[in-house]
Amino acid sequence: MKKYIVYGLNYEDEARELGSLVNAEVLNVKHKIFPDGERYLRIEHAEKLSNSVAIVVNTMFPNQNDSLVETLMLINAARKANASKVIAVIPYLAYARQDKVFLSGEPVSAELVVKSLRMSGADVLITVDVHSPAILEHFDGIAVNLLVSRELVEKALEYLENPVVIAPDKGALERARYAAENLGLEYDYLVKHRDRETGIVKIEPKEASVSGRDVVIVDDIISTGGTIAEASKLLLSIGARKIVVAATHGLLVGSALDKLRKAGVYRVLLANTVGVKYEDPLVEYVDILRVIADKLGSIIEKQEK
Amino acid sequence: MKKYIVYGLNYEDEARELGSLVNAEVLNVKHKIFPDGERYLRIEHAEKLSNSVAIVVNTMFPNQNDSLVETLMLINAARKANASKVIAVIPYLAYARQDKVFLSGEPVSAELVVKSLRMSGADVLITVDVHSPAILEHFDGIAVNLLVSRELVEKALEYLENPVVIAPDKGALERARYAAENLGLEYDYLVKHRDRETGIVKIEPKEASVSGRDVVIVDDIISTGGTIAEASKLLLSIGARKIVVAATHGLLVGSALDKLRKAGVYRVLLANTVGVKYEDPLVEYVDILRVIADKLGSIIEKQEK
Repeated sequence: MKKYIVYGLNYEDEARELGSLVNAEVLNVKHKIFPDGERYLRIEHAEKLSNSVAIVVNTMFPNQNDSLVETLMLINAARKANASKVIAVIPYLAYARQDKVFLSGEPVSAELVVKSLRMSGADVLITVDVHSPAILEHFDGIAVNLLVSRELVEKALEYLENPVVIAPDKGALERARYAAENLGLEYDYLVKHRDRETGIVKIEPKEASVSGRDVVIVDDIISTGGTIAEASKLLLSIGARKIVVAATHGLLVGSALDKLRKAGVYRVLLANTVGVKYEDPLVEYVDILRVIADKLGSIIEKQEK
Repeated sequence: MKKYIVYGLNYEDEARELGSLVNAEVLNVKHKIFPDGERYLRIEHAEKLSNSVAIVVNTMFPNQNDSLVETLMLINAARKANASKVIAVIPYLAYARQDKVFLSGEPVSAELVVKSLRMSGADVLITVDVHSPAILEHFDGIAVNLLVSRELVEKALEYLENPVVIAPDKGALERARYAAENLGLEYDYLVKHRDRETGIVKIEPKEASVSGRDVVIVDDIISTGGTIAEASKLLLSIGARKIVVAATHGLLVGSALDKLRKAGVYRVLLANTVGVKYEDPLVEYVDILRVIADKLGSIIEKQEK
């Protein structure tokens, strides 16, 4: 079966790279905004999609709401053009952190994002290192979460020797474990202890000693950088030597990079999963499109059987 | 059963007015934007929604994509708070004009909007004068389209004597007919004739004569004002005396009002269905919340039986 790629505005270059990796033709998409603010798009040569696999490639940062709506339009347009399968490749899913009702009266926004991708006509969803993989259960079809912390930590090894891999909290432990076990490294996560006598809260690694050692902090998203800056300062204060941050999605809003620099971080390694790239000596990107391409290839192969 | 109103940012004042019309308590909604651009909302005192009717009130102009996502979040939040029924009141639905694939490769964006309201948990959808009522069939539940052209044309009668009601095209004829028949007025629509000998295109009313008469132009949406300005100039050129425009949704983007003024329009009557109000001597708003409240009342009554 023939396969074609269509793309959203946040991720056009990456979609074209993905196209050459999986040997799929990229169909140009005309995007425009009407005077009243409504978005419009049209897939060129959409007749090619008939009885073919349409791979819709976009990412949801920045402009989360616009890129969500744009993605739904792309999926719907592929369906209307009679694609026999629609695979949505969305490395960064917006609202993934609002994955439950934390306080009564809140929505589960992550559920809306995942369900709407399915509702608009996607058969398969491929994403990368989603904050909470459980939200993919709302996708009533094949949903795949690709971990890339191994690729990021492997890059970190170029700067560090036999480091310990640290997750900033228990929620991030799985991706630390995944990378560490694959690379034969020790891993741990940070816990809060409250001293029963003084009442003082102490944050420290659960078991590992970082004194005199290099550290990779592994996390999924850096937004304002607050959590990771705090973790870095703490680890340095208890004797860590060099700190490299390996985070999948680098939103880095506001003064995030300055915060990390001031906290003493040696380098920030990011995957190319969002639609912004920061040119800053602190930052280095790791191309993870190969990981997506491999999965995409095997899924398309299965669909064809 | 108790009933509560929650609201989106585009339509808070109107939601409160609707609350007093249907005797429903309004629950405050906390809205905020995270540093990375994600929206957050929380319905205060959401515990009241348990086993109650939640009426979600918002409108999708301006900021169509943001207000769509916000509306989905409100519906989802009401559902998570165990509302037994969720009624979405959305006087203006974004993307209603993209109601089919006009050119291959386009999405049917209107379908996405309507389906996503259902997918997020709305049982009932009430809207006002949607561009193409057929799109409501995508709402797999009770969907109601309220016409308000009668209220608008009634207001126009204060300025005009025995006017003829004109739709700018055949697609707008239904709302012209609805208003005219209710008020005992003549109605017609504009058609294009191509002269077989000269090839010149002439636009004129299909049957009615407007010479020496007052005219109400009835339409659903004024966006840039181009269509209605052209229709007005034409009608004046063939002898119409005074022209009042009665349009439901006044988006009026860019220089729309100047265009209408220059075209010789005497007054523009609009329903209060969108989230912007223009203060301009040409414009007058007709409050149609009473029409929504009446329908809402009868729907809630039925649900209770």
